[in-house]
Amino acid sequence: MTASMQLTTDWLRTRASLTPVDMAVTCGGVNVTWSALHVRADAVASALASRGVREGDRVALLLANGLPFTVLTHAVPRLGAILVPLNTRLSARELTWQLEDAGVCLLVHDGSTGSLAAEAAAALDVRLADAAELREADAACASEARDRLERIHTIIYTSGTTGRPKGAMLTFGNHLWSAIGSALNLGLRADDQLLASLPMFHVGGLSVLVRSVIYGNPAIVQESFDPASVNAAIDGGATIVSAVANTLTRMLESRGDIGYPLTLRAILLGGGPAPRGLLETCAVRGVPVVQTYGLTEAASQVATLAPAETLRKLGSTGRPLFLTEIKIDGAAVPGDVGEILVRGASVSPGYWRRPDETSETFRDGWLRTGDIGHLDGEGYLYVLDRRDDLIVSGGENVYPAEVEAVLLSHPEVIGAGVYGIDDTRWGRVPLADVVLRPGTALTVDSLKSYCRGRLANYKVPVHIRSVRALPRTATGKLQRRLLGAPADMLPQHRGP
Amino acid sequence: MTASMQLTTDWLRTRASLTPVDMAVTCGGVNVTWSALHVRADAVASALASRGVREGDRVALLLANGLPFTVLTHAVPRLGAILVPLNTRLSARELTWQLEDAGVCLLVHDGSTGSLAAEAAAALDVRLADAAELREADAACASEARDRLERIHTIIYTSGTTGRPKGAMLTFGNHLWSAIGSALNLGLRADDQLLASLPMFHVGGLSVLVRSVIYGNPAIVQESFDPASVNAAIDGGATIVSAVANTLTRMLESRGDIGYPLTLRAILLGGGPAPRGLLETCAVRGVPVVQTYGLTEAASQVATLAPAETLRKLGSTGRPLFLTEIKIDGAAVPGDVGEILVRGASVSPGYWRRPDETSETFRDGWLRTGDIGHLDGEGYLYVLDRRDDLIVSGGENVYPAEVEAVLLSHPEVIGAGVYGIDDTRWGRVPLADVVLRPGTALTVDSLKSYCRGRLANYKVPVHIRSVRALPRTATGKLQRRLLGAPADMLPQHRGP
Repeated sequence: MTASMQLTTDWLRTRASLTPVDMAVTCGGVNVTWSALHVRADAVASALASRGVREGDRVALLLANGLPFTVLTHAVPRLGAILVPLNTRLSARELTWQLEDAGVCLLVHDGSTGSLAAEAAAALDVRLADAAELREADAACASEARDRLERIHTIIYTSGTTGRPKGAMLTFGNHLWSAIGSALNLGLRADDQLLASLPMFHVGGLSVLVRSVIYGNPAIVQESFDPASVNAAIDGGATIVSAVANTLTRMLESRGDIGYPLTLRAILLGGGPAPRGLLETCAVRGVPVVQTYGLTEAASQVATLAPAETLRKLGSTGRPLFLTEIKIDGAAVPGDVGEILVRGASVSPGYWRRPDETSETFRDGWLRTGDIGHLDGEGYLYVLDRRDDLIVSGGENVYPAEVEAVLLSHPEVIGAGVYGIDDTRWGRVPLADVVLRPGTALTVDSLKSYCRGRLANYKVPVHIRSVRALPRTATGKLQRRLLGAPADMLPQHRGP
Repeated sequence: MTASMQLTTDWLRTRASLTPVDMAVTCGGVNVTWSALHVRADAVASALASRGVREGDRVALLLANGLPFTVLTHAVPRLGAILVPLNTRLSARELTWQLEDAGVCLLVHDGSTGSLAAEAAAALDVRLADAAELREADAACASEARDRLERIHTIIYTSGTTGRPKGAMLTFGNHLWSAIGSALNLGLRADDQLLASLPMFHVGGLSVLVRSVIYGNPAIVQESFDPASVNAAIDGGATIVSAVANTLTRMLESRGDIGYPLTLRAILLGGGPAPRGLLETCAVRGVPVVQTYGLTEAASQVATLAPAETLRKLGSTGRPLFLTEIKIDGAAVPGDVGEILVRGASVSPGYWRRPDETSETFRDGWLRTGDIGHLDGEGYLYVLDRRDDLIVSGGENVYPAEVEAVLLSHPEVIGAGVYGIDDTRWGRVPLADVVLRPGTALTVDSLKSYCRGRLANYKVPVHIRSVRALPRTATGKLQRRLLGAPADMLPQHRGP
């Protein structure tokens, strides 16, 4: 194994040759085998080539979850081109910025995103293609079945909470090692079925497709999140499901008192700190929740907590994957709090064409996550907060997630977001927006009292506001930087 | 991931931090956890360091299977030293050759191999150490927990057609990718138990220890092969068992009519072509045999056949592991017969200090196995003939050229040809035809004694026949496939 070692990188081609008639994808009642998926990917790759896509080009996807997204995930790298999945919830203006930054040559959309794509690409030298029209063409398809693992596979934009979005580059090796690390942690079974209901334009959704082709397990693709559909897929044999706190809560609500079948091996719970109440509920009900801590820059999972340890290590996201290392910047002993640093083969080589941000974030081989946490004496990671959300009040650190967890522990609170505002006396003070259970008699004053009994005074929100809904990303992750908006600018749909 | 990327390579340290109280090894009724194994490996590493072992040094093991072998497999690489497992069945003379070739600085033996070790090392600058006396010392232990995957982990000697054993180098990456490829093929379960009854000085036995630490599954180590003990271990929960045809046959004989428990997931059957009768018996009795084709130079498994396909693809060793590629040299269409070529991340970078043999065997990124076979239309490998004249006897490789060289080293022998014949117990056994110096007083019996002092017992021809001449081509090259013909069909001209 030398620096120039090449490995099989057309994983779909390999998979199709090894297990051609096994099921690869099931989506909207349609089942596709590995050999059929391989043929479709070849057709789409030749169609892309006929539209001028060449090695090294960036091809962006503005697509809902579905078969076209799945096929393109294999077809684009087959040409040596780089996949740029885009968030379908962004504004045209935000998309334009990312298309230009990545130097995208072709933007693939579907019926639901066609006008958004046209608006975003209007002023740019970016061609458009409807995924439904990418059919086999007579173009040469420069398929390379093997390559260096260092080659770039994907660029995924990540905004953090402040600043300009940066394109995190993920190599074939990053994806492969991520899938391997996850398998070494969760095990691997021939009858596994991986459920992807989270958006595939995020690394958590995309990684399901990567694990699927490498493991040879079918991906159950759902076009959007629907709690009843996810529960039905679990009853139908889905063994590993990816979720965030918000979607898991809705799954459990929809499920009522009915337990999950034993075939369900793991619900991978990511996307930020999970409320204790939710974890306790899952433990009591025997729902196999595997808490994870992951990042786009590390191709998804970095640490996970096994279901059996949920209660013993409540609040922890567990231990690092086998080939991943985690340390706390500057920590001398267990328990010391600091920035979480990550290294390993799944860590991105950097941000697309951003040498400054790259050298700032990837230092001495370590990815500086910007997240704050600590490791306990057994090496379990506790993520306290995103550093960017940190509220420093009178010299004390207030971690919004900690305050939110207390608010959410009140039975009448179904959503909570904490943020800081400037204060002449303390520098910054915390405020909270909460979603209360409909029809509740709870007042914000009594909720404050509730907090005072459970938090140091400086952590208690100076003001709590009852709102109808909280701003969330497509994956359901709370967007703290949008908290505190005037009530008439908040999302109007009812929900936590 | 760059050329200089380093990864966790002290797998035992990582494993001990992740799952400290899980069982690592069970051997002779003794159970050892990962944290205890880690502590023992540290003690042995410091003892080795106190005896002068330094980074890059070669440390040879002449040990029976057992806990000391297991501990040393982790302790030696922890010092950055290279592990050289030696076959305990070799003669002192053969061992001397390998010790000298590898430039071994320290030879570790146990009670049963002490005098053989002393004899083998007598004329060399090689220190000896009894494994039982390697106890913690106050020496600095230059433990590196991470390294480049290209670093050499092991040198394993393997003979070839030339007769001279060569040290196949296996890197950390070779071992890691081999374990990953096997997991992607066989799956991975938290409750797996890996049974190692085959010798650990062969790659097939050693790879069990590597998979054990990477997967976090216990290795059940048996000090020697005993069919009843293996069967008992399977009843006790062993899920994956490594065997060769001879040992599997004896397991089935010992088992009688009793079936195996459902917990037994796979019997990995390697070490040469399996008799059809044995495979059919296993299929009928529901024994989950996974036929494998593997090589020392590829860190063990290269291709495997799933139990469900045993009858449909009888005689095949299945398809390549996910990240391994196999092709037939010069084959234009499926079915074309030729030399089997292998490439992938588990393939050795070459032979220790043998640039000529290395460039001959590893060409254009492909390992030339010397074995003959073909691929069918579905990509299943059929091995027709192990490298040229290889005689696989009870799972051990006997290279005719090596035995012939010993015969020819006797001053009274002027011609020698070695070949294999079928044997009910060992599969194949070696025989020899020799041409003696005219008028010599040498008998075939004393020639056999001569061989016994120079060759491992399994290599000594079970029968030596004195003939007038050997079958040769016009150019004088020995035609081994014509050996063993009745005496009256042999060439009558006098000569070697």
